[in-house]
This record gives sequence, structure tokens and C-alpha cells, in this order.
Amino acid sequence: MGGSLGLAIKALGEPPWITGWDVASDACGLALQRGACDAIARSAADAVKEADLVIVATPVGAIEALFKAGVVVSDVASTKAQVISWAKACMPGVSFVGAHPMAGSERQGMAFARADLLKGATYCLTPDSHTPAEATAALKALIRQLGAIPLTLEAAAHDVQVAMVSHLPFVLSALLVNQAALQPEWPTMRLLAAGGFRDATRMASGDALMHRDICLTNQAPLRDSLLALAQTLLKTADKLADADYLNTMFLDAKAQRDAWVRDSEPR
Amino acid sequence: MGGSLGLAIKALGEPPWITGWDVASDACGLALQRGACDAIARSAADAVKEADLVIVATPVGAIEALFKAGVVVSDVASTKAQVISWAKACMPGVSFVGAHPMAGSERQGMAFARADLLKGATYCLTPDSHTPAEATAALKALIRQLGAIPLTLEAAAHDVQVAMVSHLPFVLSALLVNQAALQPEWPTMRLLAAGGFRDATRMASGDALMHRDICLTNQAPLRDSLLALAQTLLKTADKLADADYLNTMFLDAKAQRDAWVRDSEPR
Repeated sequence: MGGSLGLAIKALGEPPWITGWDVASDACGLALQRGACDAIARSAADAVKEADLVIVATPVGAIEALFKAGVVVSDVASTKAQVISWAKACMPGVSFVGAHPMAGSERQGMAFARADLLKGATYCLTPDSHTPAEATAALKALIRQLGAIPLTLEAAAHDVQVAMVSHLPFVLSALLVNQAALQPEWPTMRLLAAGGFRDATRMASGDALMHRDICLTNQAPLRDSLLALAQTLLKTADKLADADYLNTMFLDAKAQRDAWVRDSEPR
Repeated sequence: MGGSLGLAIKALGEPPWITGWDVASDACGLALQRGACDAIARSAADAVKEADLVIVATPVGAIEALFKAGVVVSDVASTKAQVISWAKACMPGVSFVGAHPMAGSERQGMAFARADLLKGATYCLTPDSHTPAEATAALKALIRQLGAIPLTLEAAAHDVQVAMVSHLPFVLSALLVNQAALQPEWPTMRLLAAGGFRDATRMASGDALMHRDICLTNQAPLRDSLLALAQTLLKTADKLADADYLNTMFLDAKAQRDAWVRDSEPR
């Protein structure tokens, strides 16, 4: 996400200077080579020293430590309430605008960064009563320049909603793989698995540590989603002979998803 | 699937004559126009009258009625034990080889048929002790000619395994959509839903009646899969503060899926 943001910002008419930094030096080299930033700093602290706007794009669990370095203004983490409370504790006095661009892929890293990743995507902002209005406005302006669509939500509402449309799906994706792969029949079952299995489990190939950190920082909303789905599974298991029930279930889902896909294009 | 099979067979070096038939006359016209068959019959009975091999490619629930027309040899239905018992009851004396090509997409119909859909795909056969060996051998030979890979399984084993890697995923896909779309927050939640939700729910845009019929004809294996997953969801809901547990869960899933994807390519 950091690489894609860098590429998108450097593709603007009058791009600002960007100093980059990453724990991995090969990611730094590739970012420089692909033009996602103008220079690489020696340390995270150096990188943010003279910045007007800092965007932190690391796994959620790593953010707390980085905040201690000082001037952080925004982030791209998938959960917001926990991150905002860390930001408040670690950098009182800094203008922090929690944010979450709703784009990405299971292929992580600078090699897969794309300048157009954010075009048409929802870019969620979660300012609270302590966030200076100018900081929020400045980030919103940048988001619009990048062709993304800013959406302001309360952090708690964001966390509940992404638990349902993002975190629950990636947890399920992993559980589907593990449930199948643990069976003694997996050696033949894996030959039967086709496009449906591939799509339903795509997120299981994403970054395991990122997924772990998201779960750890969004426990209550995710737990509610998991428990609700477990109840629905138990109910569905009881309805497999009920043609009308199944009809309604599949037709409703198809209608809702088709409408969502139609409204989401072009992305 | 019928259209893709027709296109693939007509692309062979010395293709046989193919008579097609479908309840929908526009599908028949398109099949003829795209070269998926040589002629369209007036009725299902007419279509199968002089055939050496008949492949029935209709929703599972519609097959039972068609069998009554007579000479059916193979099918492409997603569940096998139920279909085979129908075949035995309705056409004693006919050589029936249950089969299930493991390919397809959520986009149904002749317009989306592709001659290469089956290239490299597993094509499952479920002959039993009543199936003449010549019938199985003839179908296997055709499958190999089409570039697909025949895999022989007992019908019951097939049904249990596809419940886990195919039917459970499409049921989950629909439940994920319905769970989100029923929330009062859906109008903003749908703006937050991105690529992960899109992939995890792709199958919910598939044919609702086909999915219903698959559930109805594979109840016991699917129920077991749903109940097992519900237990796993309840357990996972209790482990959201356990970093080690989550680590193992996501790393295992990623390793298994990445290995499966690697071994499955090129498809």
C-alpha cells in the first residue's frame, strides 16, 4: 500500500517530495527504482523529521512502536479504534487522522505496487473530536487528487463494518483451507478443488502476520461476526432439505451481490 | 458446461457429429452459431435417439426427468450418489457413467462457453459395479482427448470431497453476502467492501437454482461440512487474543493454499 501510494502521488501534476523508509532494504531500493519516492531515509525517525504529512503503511502491530518516533499524521491500517488509542497515548499533540484505503490484493510488497490501485476506491477516514479539521481536510484533498473517494466514519463504526466485509472473509478463507487440508482425503480433494475454491480462499494467500494483527486489534467486532455466522451455518445445516428456504437464500445473495458489483464498477 | 464441451469436442481433429438440445431456444441458436453442435433436435427425446454417447448438462434437479427419455450415458452434475440412483431407477439397462468436470465459472450459459474450459482440469468419473467397463473406457478416452485429466472415485467419496471444496464454499459465499446485506449499515458497508469481499463472494453470483439443487442432492455431506465449520468458527471466536494460535492458523492456511495453487497451475 505504501508503494502504491508513493507511485500515485508521484504521478500527480506537481508531486511533493517523498522520503521513503522500510525495514527491508530491497523494498527501499525497488521503491526508489520505480519512482515511488525521491529518497530513502536512514531511519524511520530521519524519514519523518521534516515532513508535512507522514503516511505509515506497516502491519498494524508495528505501528505503535513507529508512532514513538514523532510526527505521524495518517496511516493505512485495517483497524482504527486500537490504532487511534495508540496514537493518542504515544504522540500527544500530533495531528493524527486515522485512515484506511479500501484497496489492495493478496500480493504484498513493493513489486506489486500500482499507481492506479486507489483509483475509484473508497478511502475511509476516521477523525475524532481531537483531530484538527485542517489535518482532515488536507488528507481529504490528497485522497481526491489520487482519484479515490473519501468516506468519513467513526472509528468504532468502521471497525464493525470492516469486520463483516473484510476481516470475516479472510478468516473464513483461512478456515476453509485448513478444514479441507486437514482431511485424510486432501490428496485427492485438492485435485477436485477448482475455480470456486480458488476464489473463496484467495485471501488465505495474503500476509499471515497482517491478518493476525488485524484480528488482535479488532477482537470484539470480529468475534460478533464469527458468532453470528456460526449460528447461520447451524441454521443452514438444518435447512438443506428445504427447497424454498435455499431458493430464497441463494436468490437474495445473488441479487445483493450483483447489485453491489454493478454499483462498484468501474473500480 | 454443455456449450464448452461441445466447443471442445468440435475442436478435435476428427470431431463426431453433435446434436444439441436445450429448453431455451436462444441457447440452441447460439450453440449452433458458435459451432458447439451440428444441429438442434426438436426435443430431448429426438436428440438422444441415434446417439452413441449422450452428455446431459442440466441442473441436477432436471436430470431425473430427462433420464426417462432413454439412452443417457454420462452427465456433468455436481453431485453423484443421488444422480446415479435416479439413473438406475429410471433407465435400467442403460450404460450410465456418472461424471463431474471440475471447471466452470459463475457466468453461466452458452454465451460464456469456452472450448478450453476443460484443458488441464480434473474430470471426475464415478462408475460403480454396474457400469460396463467399455462405457467408462470410452468416456475416459474422450476426456483425455479434450486435455482434461480423468480421476475415478466412488460416488460417495466424490460427494463428501466436493461438499468440502466446492459446495461449502458456495454456501458460505451466499451467507457472507446475506449476513452483510441484512445489516442496517449495509449502505455504507457496501462502500467499504473491496477486492477481498468480491472474491470471497464471487460464487454467490452463480446460478441460484443450480446451487439449490446441489444442496438438495448432497445433504448429508454438506451438513457435516457446515457443522464442522461452525465448530471451528466458535473456537476461532474464542482465540482472537491468542497471537500464537492465529499465527499458526494463518501460516498453515497460506502454506497449504500456496502449495495447491502452485501444483494446480497451469490450468
